[in-house]
Amino acid sequence: MATVKCSIPKGTRDFLPVEMARRNHIFDTIREVFRAYAFEPIETPSLENLSTLMGKYGEEGDKLLFKILNSGDFMKDVDFSQDYHHVAPQICERGLRYDLTVPFARFIVQHRDQLALPFRRYQLQPVWRADRPQKGRYREFYQCDADMVGSDSMLNELELVQMIDEVFHRLHINVVVKINNRKILAGIAELIGAPDKLVDITVAIDKLDKIGLDNVRAELRERGLNEGQLEALNPVFDLQGDARQKLAQLRAFFSTVEVGMRGVEETEALFDLIGLHNMGCEVELDLTLARGLNYYTGAIFEVKAKDVQMGSICGGGRYDNLTGIFGMPGVSGVGISFGADRIYDVLTELNAFPEGLEQAARVMFINFGPTEQAACISIAARLRSAGISTLIYPDSVKMKKQMDFANRKAVPFVAFVGESEMRDGTVTLKNMADGTQQTLSIDQLIATLQ
Amino acid sequence: MATVKCSIPKGTRDFLPVEMARRNHIFDTIREVFRAYAFEPIETPSLENLSTLMGKYGEEGDKLLFKILNSGDFMKDVDFSQDYHHVAPQICERGLRYDLTVPFARFIVQHRDQLALPFRRYQLQPVWRADRPQKGRYREFYQCDADMVGSDSMLNELELVQMIDEVFHRLHINVVVKINNRKILAGIAELIGAPDKLVDITVAIDKLDKIGLDNVRAELRERGLNEGQLEALNPVFDLQGDARQKLAQLRAFFSTVEVGMRGVEETEALFDLIGLHNMGCEVELDLTLARGLNYYTGAIFEVKAKDVQMGSICGGGRYDNLTGIFGMPGVSGVGISFGADRIYDVLTELNAFPEGLEQAARVMFINFGPTEQAACISIAARLRSAGISTLIYPDSVKMKKQMDFANRKAVPFVAFVGESEMRDGTVTLKNMADGTQQTLSIDQLIATLQ
Repeated sequence: MATVKCSIPKGTRDFLPVEMARRNHIFDTIREVFRAYAFEPIETPSLENLSTLMGKYGEEGDKLLFKILNSGDFMKDVDFSQDYHHVAPQICERGLRYDLTVPFARFIVQHRDQLALPFRRYQLQPVWRADRPQKGRYREFYQCDADMVGSDSMLNELELVQMIDEVFHRLHINVVVKINNRKILAGIAELIGAPDKLVDITVAIDKLDKIGLDNVRAELRERGLNEGQLEALNPVFDLQGDARQKLAQLRAFFSTVEVGMRGVEETEALFDLIGLHNMGCEVELDLTLARGLNYYTGAIFEVKAKDVQMGSICGGGRYDNLTGIFGMPGVSGVGISFGADRIYDVLTELNAFPEGLEQAARVMFINFGPTEQAACISIAARLRSAGISTLIYPDSVKMKKQMDFANRKAVPFVAFVGESEMRDGTVTLKNMADGTQQTLSIDQLIATLQ
Repeated sequence: MATVKCSIPKGTRDFLPVEMARRNHIFDTIREVFRAYAFEPIETPSLENLSTLMGKYGEEGDKLLFKILNSGDFMKDVDFSQDYHHVAPQICERGLRYDLTVPFARFIVQHRDQLALPFRRYQLQPVWRADRPQKGRYREFYQCDADMVGSDSMLNELELVQMIDEVFHRLHINVVVKINNRKILAGIAELIGAPDKLVDITVAIDKLDKIGLDNVRAELRERGLNEGQLEALNPVFDLQGDARQKLAQLRAFFSTVEVGMRGVEETEALFDLIGLHNMGCEVELDLTLARGLNYYTGAIFEVKAKDVQMGSICGGGRYDNLTGIFGMPGVSGVGISFGADRIYDVLTELNAFPEGLEQAARVMFINFGPTEQAACISIAARLRSAGISTLIYPDSVKMKKQMDFANRKAVPFVAFVGESEMRDGTVTLKNMADGTQQTLSIDQLIATLQ
């Protein structure tokens, strides 16, 4: 038989058991916190109609959509002398989900009669992007989103910050939560007489961390701001003090700029709430925080790990009109998204995964032959009912081979049931870490392994 | 703004919170049992190279693969005057996973240096088939597979039956596990002088339940069996007694048919093991059980719910050469697959989902305004740390609206923190089922809700 070359598509990954255990540690932690905050799970199909997805992620995003070839004779009645951009939508009606936000908006509109607002949902599912694969960037990756829609109470924003705090506390990652407000950015654009340049300003300011103030100024100049406008921006970069002090200074700037003032008030209200309730993590106002997504209209969040050089590991914000693209205006929402892959990388770099995740089983029974195996099966059934992950080596091969296997699988305990144990109704248990052995009754065995 | 028609592709589904809770009940139960039996989780990409998938599922299967259009100028150098069957593989290099078995075989071969055999893996992931959608048949659905490879011990088969027993015991579904062996079917084909007709015989016999013996005979006649051969088949349908008695009669038939005898011996060994260990469920030998999949070479399993009219809800078997298709012969394996969608339908029909799955939260705090809300936030933080799903109504709207919301969301407890509660450090808790109220300290509150 011919050997088939075994590989997977570029930018995709297999996950082996150890990686799965580590990933599940992250997913389970996020899920537990989402549930504690009464978010409800939903799932949407991997395939969406392309009409749902196209035009929602900008021109660049449209190019990154994976398209599914129509079934059957996809060529019928299609003119293949056209450009491939025109042919693609004629031979592909469906595409793979690009993010969880647009499908969620579609979901709300489609099921609005069944949903009681305010509605909080979480969703942990993979998304697909035909991006150029590179270190840390994949074509299939998970998003972990929590959004609340149908309420514009600032309590929602507070709870998102509390959830961020709780997730990273449980994962033992020190983080700083950066907060800004899109209305403040709009106010600044208006203040310097360039309200039409809001997107250019946010895109440029967003890079401050990476390229420095001089380069941001250069980019803004290129994007059409004049020297007077650049000058007018200076005070924003020069604000001093903590969040409240900066906000007080902004108040003075924005005396005649309504949108900016509203942004300051919202942000003050959020910091007031945060001040009332102890956060384990650092929370700061970062006026350079812009986030590229244009659907944000209020608070914006971004989370960075403090002890590791890494991009943001969580982000989000408030959007006032997400479902508007599907013809249902007036549903305000706010949400966050955890970047599981980057969190994985942070935990790897910090060596902060809990111990024992690599264990294939809690205990392995050595197989001495049919009679002993029968005894092991009965004991194993009791352990398994008690939720203890239990392996019986399936063949009565040489002891060394079985012990090597237990070692390779990081099994912490090995159990022996020989003639004397069968007679006495006991098990001899070996601790693989320190080599100690003890002979135990089945109840003692369960208590030891639980 | 134009209203976009909101829909999802045919054969796919959105899952709302209640459906998610029910589905998770099934997935969690299966996962817990897989883990108790020391199966380790893996995941493979949703996208595989089409070269990995094509030709593995028969001609019909190839047609049901969802193909992904290549990115960029997919039309370059392609001759579109050809038939669509020839064009498709030139414009699509990748396809969506069709099942979990072929990707698992690919995974074993690709990662063989990292895996210690015997290896037991479980995998819960969606698969996609461009099948005609109908009741109970979807284009995207989950498979829940457990396989052990690298050991031909009959202990593996026993453990799979134990796992089936345990899963359906925990789900409160009465089932019968039907067992057969492909070698017995091969023996029968040889016995009647039609070894080349094994597939035809299994396909026809597989329908016995649905179409009856006379129609099976008619089909076999059509498939080329002569009257003598049909006659020779009769004793197989006439076997009487329990599994052991039937196997004893088969022994007599197979005195000169080696493969049949091996099938009988394997099946006897499995029923001996099953007899030693109490099963809650019924286990029976069903010589008409064939299962369509041609890669099975030994034991085959199928599970049916006893109190509901429904197809099989779990199935599997042993295959001696799964990785052979990827050039790695000699890896024997045995596995089962749970059909989550059908199990969902069975539980719905039996009305056997646990109570409380529809609850959006365990408790909801009524929002009386900013001061009371601040007190609620602190108490809620303690409940949430204790793992109690807690909601604070985000806006201080009319009490009735908040209570209606709690009812609609099936929240079992509503908490009130007013002036007196704030003064005393207490919470008044209302049980929504019976309307009773009690005023509790925070510790009492946690104890009540946990």
